[in-house]
Amino acid sequence: MSQAIKQEVHNQRIDGLDKLVTHFRSFATEGKCASYIPALGKANLFQLGICIALPTGSTIRSGDWQVPFTLQSISKVISFITACVTRGISYVLDRVDVEPTGDPFNSIIRLEMHKPGKPFNPMINAGAITVASMLPGDSSQSKLENVNQLIESMIGKRPNLNEEVFQSEWQTAHRNRALAYYLKETGFLEAEVEETLEVYLKLCSLEVTTEDIAMIGMILAHDGYHPIQHVQVLPKEVARLTKALMITCGMYNASGKFAAFVGLPAKSGVSGGILALVPPNKNREHPFQDGCGIGIYGPAIDEFGNSLTGVKLLKHLAQEWDLCIF
Amino acid sequence: MSQAIKQEVHNQRIDGLDKLVTHFRSFATEGKCASYIPALGKANLFQLGICIALPTGSTIRSGDWQVPFTLQSISKVISFITACVTRGISYVLDRVDVEPTGDPFNSIIRLEMHKPGKPFNPMINAGAITVASMLPGDSSQSKLENVNQLIESMIGKRPNLNEEVFQSEWQTAHRNRALAYYLKETGFLEAEVEETLEVYLKLCSLEVTTEDIAMIGMILAHDGYHPIQHVQVLPKEVARLTKALMITCGMYNASGKFAAFVGLPAKSGVSGGILALVPPNKNREHPFQDGCGIGIYGPAIDEFGNSLTGVKLLKHLAQEWDLCIF
Amino acid sequence: MSQAIKQEVHNQRIDGLDKLVTHFRSFATEGKCASYIPALGKANLFQLGICIALPTGSTIRSGDWQVPFTLQSISKVISFITACVTRGISYVLDRVDVEPTGDPFNSIIRLEMHKPGKPFNPMINAGAITVASMLPGDSSQSKLENVNQLIESMIGKRPNLNEEVFQSEWQTAHRNRALAYYLKETGFLEAEVEETLEVYLKLCSLEVTTEDIAMIGMILAHDGYHPIQHVQVLPKEVARLTKALMITCGMYNASGKFAAFVGLPAKSGVSGGILALVPPNKNREHPFQDGCGIGIYGPAIDEFGNSLTGVKLLKHLAQEWDLCIF
Amino acid sequence: MSQAIKQEVHNQRIDGLDKLVTHFRSFATEGKCASYIPALGKANLFQLGICIALPTGSTIRSGDWQVPFTLQSISKVISFITACVTRGISYVLDRVDVEPTGDPFNSIIRLEMHKPGKPFNPMINAGAITVASMLPGDSSQSKLENVNQLIESMIGKRPNLNEEVFQSEWQTAHRNRALAYYLKETGFLEAEVEETLEVYLKLCSLEVTTEDIAMIGMILAHDGYHPIQHVQVLPKEVARLTKALMITCGMYNASGKFAAFVGLPAKSGVSGGILALVPPNKNREHPFQDGCGIGIYGPAIDEFGNSLTGVKLLKHLAQEWDLCIF
Repeated sequence: MSQAIKQEVHNQRIDGLDKLVTHFRSFATEGKCASYIPALGKANLFQLGICIALPTGSTIRSGDWQVPFTLQSISKVISFITACVTRGISYVLDRVDVEPTGDPFNSIIRLEMHKPGKPFNPMINAGAITVASMLPGDSSQSKLENVNQLIESMIGKRPNLNEEVFQSEWQTAHRNRALAYYLKETGFLEAEVEETLEVYLKLCSLEVTTEDIAMIGMILAHDGYHPIQHVQVLPKEVARLTKALMITCGMYNASGKFAAFVGLPAKSGVSGGILALVPPNKNREHPFQDGCGIGIYGPAIDEFGNSLTGVKLLKHLAQEWDLCIF
Repeated sequence: MSQAIKQEVHNQRIDGLDKLVTHFRSFATEGKCASYIPALGKANLFQLGICIALPTGSTIRSGDWQVPFTLQSISKVISFITACVTRGISYVLDRVDVEPTGDPFNSIIRLEMHKPGKPFNPMINAGAITVASMLPGDSSQSKLENVNQLIESMIGKRPNLNEEVFQSEWQTAHRNRALAYYLKETGFLEAEVEETLEVYLKLCSLEVTTEDIAMIGMILAHDGYHPIQHVQVLPKEVARLTKALMITCGMYNASGKFAAFVGLPAKSGVSGGILALVPPNKNREHPFQDGCGIGIYGPAIDEFGNSLTGVKLLKHLAQEWDLCIF
Repeated sequence: MSQAIKQEVHNQRIDGLDKLVTHFRSFATEGKCASYIPALGKANLFQLGICIALPTGSTIRSGDWQVPFTLQSISKVISFITACVTRGISYVLDRVDVEPTGDPFNSIIRLEMHKPGKPFNPMINAGAITVASMLPGDSSQSKLENVNQLIESMIGKRPNLNEEVFQSEWQTAHRNRALAYYLKETGFLEAEVEETLEVYLKLCSLEVTTEDIAMIGMILAHDGYHPIQHVQVLPKEVARLTKALMITCGMYNASGKFAAFVGLPAKSGVSGGILALVPPNKNREHPFQDGCGIGIYGPAIDEFGNSLTGVKLLKHLAQEWDLCIF
Repeated sequence: MSQAIKQEVHNQRIDGLDKLVTHFRSFATEGKCASYIPALGKANLFQLGICIALPTGSTIRSGDWQVPFTLQSISKVISFITACVTRGISYVLDRVDVEPTGDPFNSIIRLEMHKPGKPFNPMINAGAITVASMLPGDSSQSKLENVNQLIESMIGKRPNLNEEVFQSEWQTAHRNRALAYYLKETGFLEAEVEETLEVYLKLCSLEVTTEDIAMIGMILAHDGYHPIQHVQVLPKEVARLTKALMITCGMYNASGKFAAFVGLPAKSGVSGGILALVPPNKNREHPFQDGCGIGIYGPAIDEFGNSLTGVKLLKHLAQEWDLCIF
């Protein structure tokens, strides 16, 4: 296919995006807003937005792409990267494994069933709390600073903390406190429980848009290289490891199904965000041969904690455009 | 890089393969032959072989590539494909999920813990036994025939049944019988227990070489298309689904670590075989840009049931040649 | 209280038994007949009968006391006693523990979770299957013969095998086969699976009346001494051990609640039978100071597998007559 | 037997107690002091003492009967009684079940596995923390006051708080905090976590001697009646329920074995204390026909958390004197 024809096809496809967003919004009633963090329950169930970030610096956007939402579990990807960059991969993996579990994100059973109770992966709460505790710095502020610096190097700004969401999380974080105290006892927590939870929950409460997480996805798609700033933001091996983790563990205990039917590295949050990415692949005829990042926001959540409308939209796009990495 | 230089680099790399095989053989003492099936315990711990099948029809081979071994769990990939082709994907997935578990391959706990006890994925024993039961045909012979036909369409011949291994498996299959009877009670088994186990264990006992499984891997790398016979052996969507399953569940409860550090769809068996594959990717500088299948045999098994020397060899090759799919 | 007044009080109390049986029958609709063994589903939900066997040889009987029913799990008490008598207590306890679990009677989880997988107690299926396998004799017939001899020594006859129930159990014993094969693999089964299951299920299918099991209870109440035949049918230490097991594990995963609110050693079966007993205790004012056995039959089963109407009746009697052993 | 002969036999038996204590002390090296609470690790492994409290007011004492030790889990019995007396049995049992589990005392798995996560019994940490939260009063002080009043009514004084042990527990109570936060999330905790833990851990840190707990056991043996003060200290039905709980759940996950081989209601603590009791039973020839309480202290702990030397001593006495309640 010539470049011109490709562009034509590409444009036609993009034109269809608004229709798709409208179509998939109608499934919102099959899901519901996350309710265990009260502040999240106020979201507009029917919002759905997408932003696709290309390495050229241009973006393709549709629907409620500009609505701010909190990172929630998407922050697990970013804190994991920060820990790997600052502590080294082997240091991190000595303290948290990279195995998917099939269990709910807040499950505590494995910490007792498997000795010595090493968290199975950093994409579930037990693992992410462990990661938060090992960030450099001897205060929650200095630990958070490391993550904020990484985010700034990727999206050119520091996200706001949604104080209302953070307070809501802080006051209802009983299960996360249970996990943290369990990890404290088994020796996997490297900082005090309250300090660690402050870091963990503040990261969950950072506010972004689909454009922000699409940019992060795009940089991961390029193995940590920022193609617009022309700088290697994080080491290639950390980016690769992160993408592997996203495929096997990124979509809670629906990660296997997501890999099977969407086939892209992705990480979701219960606020309705999905950070996904398409690695460059010239063999495919799709318009994103050079790789892209995808940010999605749709607060109608399914039984696993993933954006119901967002997953449906992504699945459709992945199949229509043949994006799957396999 | 010009084609000529590429070829030169390629050849130099291949020349190093023999040295690598010799090097990684020396780690065999860190593993041991699978002992729970007595006949497997007789293998030569120090054997290690590899075959890489290219879409041109040529192969790159080193070490004990020609030693026959039984498929064991590698057959789970093939029976799953056969079930999808003959029954349809949705029929199969109604009866077995595609979620990784983090549990040992022969674990029975989840069948009771999760109602209604649907097996989590077809790459662990509970799921593969379920798959064996839903193969078309009302006898073990006719069920097996379906799988054999698929294999023949891929490697041009039907593998022998290793009768000694089969008898050894049959007589010691207590745990698999426990799984099968459990599945019978919960209604997931579609045939009688003994008939199903005969199918399951005979598939485990089929004898292949690294060349055979490399060819299967190569066809999966090409989304089910047989580039030498110029025929679509299995539907693209089945191939894609299978590769996703191999990434998330293919290496037992070390699948996450394998995805993280090797990054290729693969399926292992306790006999020491690994079927892996590299999808075509012109963006990479590696000699297998057009995709390849990789067959490995190394009977020194690690704690998870994977070939210890084989995984080390694959990890080295994946890093040296930048094969990772992410 | 003089003997004459005592007898008067006694008689008045017994006169009330018929009214109680009628009263508690009305709760039958809160339960249902066991359905997992098809033949048990045919029982009359509203039947309720009781027999109290006194050491004098007299019995107090009310309601459907004469309706034959199959022992089901009540046989677990008898096979355990037989194993202890024939193999010795320490031999038996090396192969099965005496710890309550809080799990359903047919649970398999603990066999995998706890190494080396020793069954937790002989009152749940895993333990009772293990016990059946260690009965003396190298055929199912000779194993059964040992149990039948013991029963005969207690009730003066051999119970009939209900062939219809046995066939129904045999054909639907998938979960028990799963347990048995699991135990075969872990080395706890001392006979072949099919032989063991034949013993186990035939014991479940022995037909008795409340009078038969009341007599067994009465002998256990007297520490194994048969006060009518004037013979020590089983060693005192086996009787004591058995009664302890009945208190901690006899009523499935409602054993704790039964101990708390009834307070008598008892064993139930899903057919609706309960074998209970009151040890002699002169400190109490109740009419059964010299000990008694109680047999109950009420096929309306609760969520735990115990006779719903039977437990209500027993609880009432235990409180009214102050029978509790604590 | 005449009273005089009985007394003679009694005295001879008691004379042997010192020899028994000396004998069973020698097994102390098979156990070890509880180490998870640092302050407990300082105990003298070889101490062993016993006090038997009779309803006449006299006591039989031997060995290190006067050494003070902290109640630890023995407090679970007392807080449970206090909750039942102040809140009512049905209020308490709506929030905590009375089923034994076979799990370690600090296990968290069941809270997640069973919905809605009601603790299985008040003799394990999860249940006892729940009980502590429901004691009347809106401060830790007022909650503790209720328990202290009950204790005072039984032993005539208020035990000291061992401040060193409490501080040691407080600082290392990570697992208990995990349990408490988990219970907070599932709604079973009726007070704040820190307040509840202060109550729970201060109760664990109350200092007693064998004489104190023997007196409590003696009152339980008499169904809550204090035979020396001639007052009903707690309702009979609460005493009965408590004794049932002690038999099924009192000795951690060795409760079944203890019921089988000792056969007395008892509760142990990891400090090495055991509170046991013998209900009155005129049918037995033993010197404690009228019931007694038994207090034991032996800080050499076995794998389950029970006093190794204490259990051996109790088992011997129970068999020699035929104390078993069955």
